[in-house]
Amino acid sequence: MTGAFHPPLRTLMGPGPSDVPPQVLEALGRPTIGHLDPQFVTLMDDIKRLLQYVFQTDNALTLPISAPGSAGMEAAFVNLIEPGDKVIVCQNGVFGGRMKENVERCGASAIMVEDTWGTEVSLDKVEQAFFENNNIKALAFVHAETSTGVRSDAKALAAIAHKHDALVIMDTVTGLAGIPVEVDTWGIDCAYSGTQKCLSCTPGIAPITFSQRAQDVIANRSTKVQSWFLDMQLIMGYWGANTKRAYHHTAPVNAMYALHESLRLVEAEGLAAAHARHALHHKALVAGLEAMGLSMAVAADVRLPQLNAVNIPEGVDDGGVRAALLEQFDLEIGAGLGALAGKTWRIGLMGFSAKAVNVRKCLLALETVLSAQGANIAAGQALAAAEAVYQA
Amino acid sequence: MTGAFHPPLRTLMGPGPSDVPPQVLEALGRPTIGHLDPQFVTLMDDIKRLLQYVFQTDNALTLPISAPGSAGMEAAFVNLIEPGDKVIVCQNGVFGGRMKENVERCGASAIMVEDTWGTEVSLDKVEQAFFENNNIKALAFVHAETSTGVRSDAKALAAIAHKHDALVIMDTVTGLAGIPVEVDTWGIDCAYSGTQKCLSCTPGIAPITFSQRAQDVIANRSTKVQSWFLDMQLIMGYWGANTKRAYHHTAPVNAMYALHESLRLVEAEGLAAAHARHALHHKALVAGLEAMGLSMAVAADVRLPQLNAVNIPEGVDDGGVRAALLEQFDLEIGAGLGALAGKTWRIGLMGFSAKAVNVRKCLLALETVLSAQGANIAAGQALAAAEAVYQA
Repeated sequence: MTGAFHPPLRTLMGPGPSDVPPQVLEALGRPTIGHLDPQFVTLMDDIKRLLQYVFQTDNALTLPISAPGSAGMEAAFVNLIEPGDKVIVCQNGVFGGRMKENVERCGASAIMVEDTWGTEVSLDKVEQAFFENNNIKALAFVHAETSTGVRSDAKALAAIAHKHDALVIMDTVTGLAGIPVEVDTWGIDCAYSGTQKCLSCTPGIAPITFSQRAQDVIANRSTKVQSWFLDMQLIMGYWGANTKRAYHHTAPVNAMYALHESLRLVEAEGLAAAHARHALHHKALVAGLEAMGLSMAVAADVRLPQLNAVNIPEGVDDGGVRAALLEQFDLEIGAGLGALAGKTWRIGLMGFSAKAVNVRKCLLALETVLSAQGANIAAGQALAAAEAVYQA
Repeated sequence: MTGAFHPPLRTLMGPGPSDVPPQVLEALGRPTIGHLDPQFVTLMDDIKRLLQYVFQTDNALTLPISAPGSAGMEAAFVNLIEPGDKVIVCQNGVFGGRMKENVERCGASAIMVEDTWGTEVSLDKVEQAFFENNNIKALAFVHAETSTGVRSDAKALAAIAHKHDALVIMDTVTGLAGIPVEVDTWGIDCAYSGTQKCLSCTPGIAPITFSQRAQDVIANRSTKVQSWFLDMQLIMGYWGANTKRAYHHTAPVNAMYALHESLRLVEAEGLAAAHARHALHHKALVAGLEAMGLSMAVAADVRLPQLNAVNIPEGVDDGGVRAALLEQFDLEIGAGLGALAGKTWRIGLMGFSAKAVNVRKCLLALETVLSAQGANIAAGQALAAAEAVYQA
């Protein structure tokens, strides 16, 4: 017979999942009820309202997709893009490339605006792409690149798209609740995220929001959405306002309990306080890493506080260090992704993981493991540097 | 501030979700670890092996899709079907219609074989459809129609498809672990299911399996799979054997804990014992319902033991009865779906819900509520009839 699985107690400081608060895990394990139960419908209403809060939007079409963030991305493209459309896609990391795949699988053309991984999306290049191409249906970009730890200027990018009457599709999987996300103020037509980053919920669900303009585009499509599962016109029958909740698919009931609880925690803290907390622990972590002699991979003005890309020192065994952190300290940090594999580590401070105890643990563990590997680092400095930030 | 959500303790005897055992809920709430954690990889290996057992297959490509059963259906079609293909789709309920939608959204043609809802798929009509059409890529049918409670003869349907060299795509969302499913013996090329039926896990995940022949079809596609998220060639990089587990999307880690635990429970009971248990409680329930004077909507030889469609007696308020069952007894039974809305109730005996205590509760509650509504039923007979089955 197969044995039970008892996971180790990890500290999750990779690119997600982040540490999940006990309250959220407890909510997750509450007794399952039916997806059409009247009580479940009240939960759905709460979740929609709380998602409107975290996205800072009044969009009626704001809901959780019953699948991971990647499906959130796909939901954005398959609903808004039709064969023959042209989309400007900004790529400065892995996820811009995934957007390109999505656009092309919709039968549309992706006009790529490429920037060096680890730098932000260039506003000038986007302006240029709009001037060189007509009839652009949408501009798509990643607000917070999970593969590099870079924040791009979503507000300015959206403003460029508006000048050219294009829809704005924003990936904020890693952004939401970690840094300001202002869907209505910025004029984002579709934004999607994931639960396992700064919302500190378990992985598997993708919050998404569509503006009225985006809804109109969906309502006036000339072709059917290629995905039945992600077709918003069908999903609205279940999640929409003022309708009898019609069965579309069986909602992941328990995952909704957990999402509800994690959103409640964000609401209780308040978005501004959450952003300040992420910024503080980021500052302490960076101070510690730099005191140790490590260097950050991303320029200070575009760094994501919740995802810290660190250059791997020369001669250090990437996989060996991460394995030692996991084995000796139950600490997970992220490897580099795509072009940055073997070149950077990604240290997450997302949601519940963004706290001083994690910063201290990470600095001490990293110092211990790097010292054991004979890396050329300044020992004994990191913690004091971090504490100085906390005392300031 | 938003209040916490504490679900009521329901008895789930609808068409799914079914009652979830406490062990599975407890597993669900265990601490989250990373989706690339070496310990998570051992869990994935267990899950694949256990899914092979419940599907009765040696298929290497057997895994859980990170989304509900509807996405399992979509994964089957988008991977195996390409634009211009012809697929024979059997429809004898809601889900055959959903298959048609999937086929058409793949740019393929659906040749429909339609049977009256509440009856099984006609083998003769399927034979006929093959003789009237050439170059059929696949035959698609629903093994256990959740909307009507009908079992179709999967083995015989697959044999017809084999004669015509067509792939066999089988929906066994409601079948798996409730009645025999023999993927290899029957020669099913792709079968998919859901976690929230006879596996008695929380909803949100779709087990799926592809034969070697199906894998070859996928490997030799001339077009890209239209869904990035459901593209098996990409997913194999994460779930496949003998590969470094490459990131595709973030797996729903906690949902995998729950699935693992629910599969362990099936393994511990054994499939044959699980099938016998479903059959026994079905027999007792039907005896009780008929003693009460209610009639079954489906002929005895094609009834699904795990999903019992009952004709709603004339003059009875469908919604009122279900609401009273929920309010007075915390008991959920299912409404009719699609063409059967208002005509039948669907009483589930799926997985952990298939037990004598549920049968007794359901019979007594239904008798009480129907009597209060002034329905013309024989009171005081149902429980004895059910007990007679248990004593036999």
